[in-house]
Amino acid sequence: MTLFGYTLPLSPSGRSSLVPPPPWHFSGEVVMVEYLADPDVVTSFMPPGLEPGDRPGLAAAIFGDWQSCTDDATELLDPVRSQYRECYVALAATWQGEPVARCPFCWVDKDFSLVRGLIQGYPKKMGSIGITRAFGIGRATPQDGAGAQFAGTLAAGERRLVEARVALTAPAPAPALMLAPLVHSRCFPSWDPATAGVDELVTGGSTDQWIDNVWAGDAELTIFDSPHDEVSLLKPVEVLGGYRFSFAETIAGGRLLSATGR
Amino acid sequence: MTLFGYTLPLSPSGRSSLVPPPPWHFSGEVVMVEYLADPDVVTSFMPPGLEPGDRPGLAAAIFGDWQSCTDDATELLDPVRSQYRECYVALAATWQGEPVARCPFCWVDKDFSLVRGLIQGYPKKMGSIGITRAFGIGRATPQDGAGAQFAGTLAAGERRLVEARVALTAPAPAPALMLAPLVHSRCFPSWDPATAGVDELVTGGSTDQWIDNVWAGDAELTIFDSPHDEVSLLKPVEVLGGYRFSFAETIAGGRLLSATGR
Amino acid sequence: MTLFGYTLPLSPSGRSSLVPPPPWHFSGEVVMVEYLADPDVVTSFMPPGLEPGDRPGLAAAIFGDWQSCTDDATELLDPVRSQYRECYVALAATWQGEPVARCPFCWVDKDFSLVRGLIQGYPKKMGSIGITRAFGIGRATPQDGAGAQFAGTLAAGERRLVEARVALTAPAPAPALMLAPLVHSRCFPSWDPATAGVDELVTGGSTDQWIDNVWAGDAELTIFDSPHDEVSLLKPVEVLGGYRFSFAETIAGGRLLSATGR
Amino acid sequence: MTLFGYTLPLSPSGRSSLVPPPPWHFSGEVVMVEYLADPDVVTSFMPPGLEPGDRPGLAAAIFGDWQSCTDDATELLDPVRSQYRECYVALAATWQGEPVARCPFCWVDKDFSLVRGLIQGYPKKMGSIGITRAFGIGRATPQDGAGAQFAGTLAAGERRLVEARVALTAPAPAPALMLAPLVHSRCFPSWDPATAGVDELVTGGSTDQWIDNVWAGDAELTIFDSPHDEVSLLKPVEVLGGYRFSFAETIAGGRLLSATGR
Repeated sequence: MTLFGYTLPLSPSGRSSLVPPPPWHFSGEVVMVEYLADPDVVTSFMPPGLEPGDRPGLAAAIFGDWQSCTDDATELLDPVRSQYRECYVALAATWQGEPVARCPFCWVDKDFSLVRGLIQGYPKKMGSIGITRAFGIGRATPQDGAGAQFAGTLAAGERRLVEARVALTAPAPAPALMLAPLVHSRCFPSWDPATAGVDELVTGGSTDQWIDNVWAGDAELTIFDSPHDEVSLLKPVEVLGGYRFSFAETIAGGRLLSATGR
Repeated sequence: MTLFGYTLPLSPSGRSSLVPPPPWHFSGEVVMVEYLADPDVVTSFMPPGLEPGDRPGLAAAIFGDWQSCTDDATELLDPVRSQYRECYVALAATWQGEPVARCPFCWVDKDFSLVRGLIQGYPKKMGSIGITRAFGIGRATPQDGAGAQFAGTLAAGERRLVEARVALTAPAPAPALMLAPLVHSRCFPSWDPATAGVDELVTGGSTDQWIDNVWAGDAELTIFDSPHDEVSLLKPVEVLGGYRFSFAETIAGGRLLSATGR
Repeated sequence: MTLFGYTLPLSPSGRSSLVPPPPWHFSGEVVMVEYLADPDVVTSFMPPGLEPGDRPGLAAAIFGDWQSCTDDATELLDPVRSQYRECYVALAATWQGEPVARCPFCWVDKDFSLVRGLIQGYPKKMGSIGITRAFGIGRATPQDGAGAQFAGTLAAGERRLVEARVALTAPAPAPALMLAPLVHSRCFPSWDPATAGVDELVTGGSTDQWIDNVWAGDAELTIFDSPHDEVSLLKPVEVLGGYRFSFAETIAGGRLLSATGR
Repeated sequence: MTLFGYTLPLSPSGRSSLVPPPPWHFSGEVVMVEYLADPDVVTSFMPPGLEPGDRPGLAAAIFGDWQSCTDDATELLDPVRSQYRECYVALAATWQGEPVARCPFCWVDKDFSLVRGLIQGYPKKMGSIGITRAFGIGRATPQDGAGAQFAGTLAAGERRLVEARVALTAPAPAPALMLAPLVHSRCFPSWDPATAGVDELVTGGSTDQWIDNVWAGDAELTIFDSPHDEVSLLKPVEVLGGYRFSFAETIAGGRLLSATGR
């Protein structure tokens, strides 16, 4: 017999796999706050070969309200299989002189996204993420344009970890930290001590990036201490500003940069 | 001492109340399927004084992706306090000759919405609701306009209860069952057997209704049997069509129709 | 037609009611910390007619790991319908000279328990509650007897609110605050401004209380500030000690004490 | 810089890892139903090298109510980090003539357990699992001994997938399928198409197994069809009986059986 599946669970048909094989398509809306963390702490989160970016301590807290699907897009008709929310931190970095981004922490609220992320090297845990939405009408929505306020919130392990707020002021160009290629560490421990686990430095495989309706504005960002998560090591020493925009991409396999990811 | 609060918990400040006092503002997006249920079953769900509507068995399954807030709208900056999803069934009815709607079943995914609904007479339980979203860009979204497909799904008590799909064909006028005043039974049992509980027929108090971007189309609707919920009594015998639109309203207190709600 | 149901939703059969009619039977395990809060704050949470107890500021944080059912106990075979966890604060009080307990705050993790509690006057919100369990074997459990440590934790609205720990030292008599009759405010707002809402002071209706395997010990208790919950007003100024025990009761209707609950 | 962590997220301290390094200790209670599935289907779920067991089609549905921790057991004092529930299917098999068990499907309700399982080769997804508990007192519990009924339930992706019931009749020896070594396929896809992913057949590493208080009895088992999970391929053709017992083990690294897991 042969068993099939891009991931576990394997089955004769391959249909039970928690994650279907790439390409994966993503559409969504993002609330993002750019800030400066302690540059020494940012450096301490860099894997071998990655250097901090030109602006010491440059980082972002990024909240995404996503749908994802495979080519036939049938997942969109069962939202429990396609919708999820995400919060991650991005650090500005360079790889061999090229600007990239490094993601030290990431949370999502669905299992398929968690494991799909681990395959790419996103360091995902489960969390509860909230992102203010804009509806065209009524009073329970930010109004269009300047002055509109959007929040992103993250809780994990029953504790609030991140709160971000953006008050939009004007249309703006796309933020570089959203578009930079991510350099991830793929880690999967061995089980037999006589064998080696996976420990790779890779780049992400994002293609067909579309960004639209970018507005920038003033921002606030709070990262809370927690007894079990270390994200507050990267708390803001200066908040630079915020963004809200629509974003889409396709992810379809990446490239090995180094045989060691740490 | 005096304790304050629109609902429990009471406190010296009144700030702990699960539900703040009205008015409550709502903005959101709705996926809706109009259908015919068994007319006799529809009649069996009518409280005294309510008559079925002109078209026997006319009903709708309505999925709402909502934000709600009070006048200062601070809830919008902490989405866990303002966002929720809802699925309910609406039955066409008349009260003293006027067209109204009756809601026999309703599910939401947040506690503040559950209790706020019980106060109005919405028969809410907790559930898990999914509603396809439209993003402007990328491949993980229905495209704009004709042909776009949207789904609504409901699970409660660990069982899938309702699945709806709409394939949009053209702009359309607003569906009457969404705009008709709801006639609810407010029920709150007594605790001391020597006292009376609340048992009232009321109408809902919706004002400032705004509806926009209404598209209609073809629809599918499945209502599943469950050992604990009776919603499948109202399963479709004919599906008429579907809608997707933006909706907003303010709810601010209602009107007693009858001293008995059943 | 006539519609039936102890609570909403009403239906021709009455089977859809979120809460079945009493009597309700409860079995479970409790972790409890007795402490002193600021006596003035405790007094500020007393409704008219209730006086603080003899020991100023006496309070308890009580974590319960429950099953509940009606007479035929069929709920026990579908745990989503019978299991829930609870955390509440109890304040020592007297009613006409008799010792009673007052519950200013309460959280549970299931909808049927939330609404069943509101009917009695428990000021319930939804939360996430954790309670250490004892298994007879292995290393992932407190061991039996002296030295065993148990924790209770509460989060609500994505924020950790309460953490309690008890290190058992010896068998002990039952803690009075667990057994004292609760005096609750039943509140259900009116909807038509021309009518009156429910606002009653009642006592709880607990019968057939069984308590077993009571151990006492040293305790820690932390109540965290939150922007939306006021439970930290009742934070400990002195922690007296903790308990762990099994508890069972039947609740079956109560008694009106006063026509005003606040 | 060097980054540490048994799993992602990596950090300078290693403390952020979703899963701490083994050994992991487990204590819990299990409800289990032994049954016969279609032998051809059972065979179709065997990886290369694994043969079905002596009794064609022998399988079990196993529901576990667990605490887990590392050596210092501090996780037990924050239950969100130590408690989880699990449901899995076990198939009787042989490896080189030795009786083993194969797990084709598994669900848990916490992220740390999901990823910890994937490392071992447990094919875990997130689900909602319910398991009837026994409390010593009251009416909301199965009574001790013969006649006590226990249920296990599983939902995933908003659909009920498995329901099991056991009515205990007498103490019994430990069920072999619970104690047999598990043979797992460890699968972790490559990301750079030029590299190889992980695809290993391993055995689980369970040590220090303790089983206690084993009762057997009559059982029922229903496995429901689902559009996205294939567990109903392994539905019962004959239910053999059920068990309830306490179980503990320590898991601490395993052994490679074959360089291919499928």
